[in-house]
Amino acid sequence: MTRTALIATDAYLKDPQAIVARSWELIRTETDVTGLSAELVPVALRLVQATGMPEIVGDLRASTGAVAAGRAALRAGAPVFCDSEMTAAGILGKRLLADSEIIVTLNDPRAAERGKSERITRPSAAVELWAARLAGAVVAIGDAPTALFRLLELVEAGSPRPALVLGFAVGFVDAAESKAALAKSGLPFIALLGRRGGSVLAAEAVNALASEAP
Amino acid sequence: MTRTALIATDAYLKDPQAIVARSWELIRTETDVTGLSAELVPVALRLVQATGMPEIVGDLRASTGAVAAGRAALRAGAPVFCDSEMTAAGILGKRLLADSEIIVTLNDPRAAERGKSERITRPSAAVELWAARLAGAVVAIGDAPTALFRLLELVEAGSPRPALVLGFAVGFVDAAESKAALAKSGLPFIALLGRRGGSVLAAEAVNALASEAP
Repeated sequence: MTRTALIATDAYLKDPQAIVARSWELIRTETDVTGLSAELVPVALRLVQATGMPEIVGDLRASTGAVAAGRAALRAGAPVFCDSEMTAAGILGKRLLADSEIIVTLNDPRAAERGKSERITRPSAAVELWAARLAGAVVAIGDAPTALFRLLELVEAGSPRPALVLGFAVGFVDAAESKAALAKSGLPFIALLGRRGGSVLAAEAVNALASEAP
Repeated sequence: MTRTALIATDAYLKDPQAIVARSWELIRTETDVTGLSAELVPVALRLVQATGMPEIVGDLRASTGAVAAGRAALRAGAPVFCDSEMTAAGILGKRLLADSEIIVTLNDPRAAERGKSERITRPSAAVELWAARLAGAVVAIGDAPTALFRLLELVEAGSPRPALVLGFAVGFVDAAESKAALAKSGLPFIALLGRRGGSVLAAEAVNALASEAP
């Protein structure tokens, strides 16, 4: 009696080059980039690749020249501030961002202390530690709406302005509101409106900016 | 002349406890858990919280007793194998998983070498390095379909069986296929069918299992 293999030998693509080629073929076929600026298209397609969700493109927004601003900042070695360790972990730093420091202050003890004493979230308190170095930086928010709101408050209060803010705050409470506020703030931005977002998107947006435009 | 503040002082919820309470209120209201087993509900709600997407619950599947199996394995200090650094970064190890080792072999030089010499993906080659320690482990796949397929092949070929496989492979090429194969494999599993998935979901599934059931 022969046993049927559960996984047939041809059940899936194994060759890395074939996988990449097939993936981009499907992404390009299935993603409607009408209405995106030319510079935003490669960023949008990378976000689609990372999520398997072509439909997110409909919620993607950017200020004019945002992609160019982000690319220039990273080329110049600007620091990248992230609101979560996951976002930082998803940035392909060694390959693409040799000169940029990736900074996460979420686990800085001062963030925990200040969060507790002021009854604000730790991500929000962590953003306050960025203020002195924000000039020309890239900010990648992939988690906390309160972090994005706090950043906007800091800039409004006169702190240095980042070169680009990547708004991918996620969730049910104020994620949509924080990204809508970013889009109205006058800061250069790329954002996914609505509740969807996450550290994968924030990290992939950085990676897309750090890659050569295809 | 007074300048209108862009961010009103009451523009968003700032108190962490109020945010958590409001978030869970919205998640419970908007998520249809009909058809999920009782043990899967807290895991499902956490995945919804992490993504802002109640609709993913419709694609969530699990084998009978999967959640109990995962909780027991983690309580016993079973290792957690992850296919990506992002998944590992999202696991709240210090708080919840004191005795479990979180293992990522993606950047092991042997994975890169073997991937290149065999023309297979690095995540797939990385999984082969897990084989000796898979017995009773928790496996969290949040990225590569080839990693999940390779795991299934290893188990079919006689390698030790993990206690639970978390299937959140993502993307256009074979993600849906790999998770469908997992669901038919006979291994204890929790998976999000279809193309959607990602390291956030894989990490949050581990965190949900490591938390006390609410």
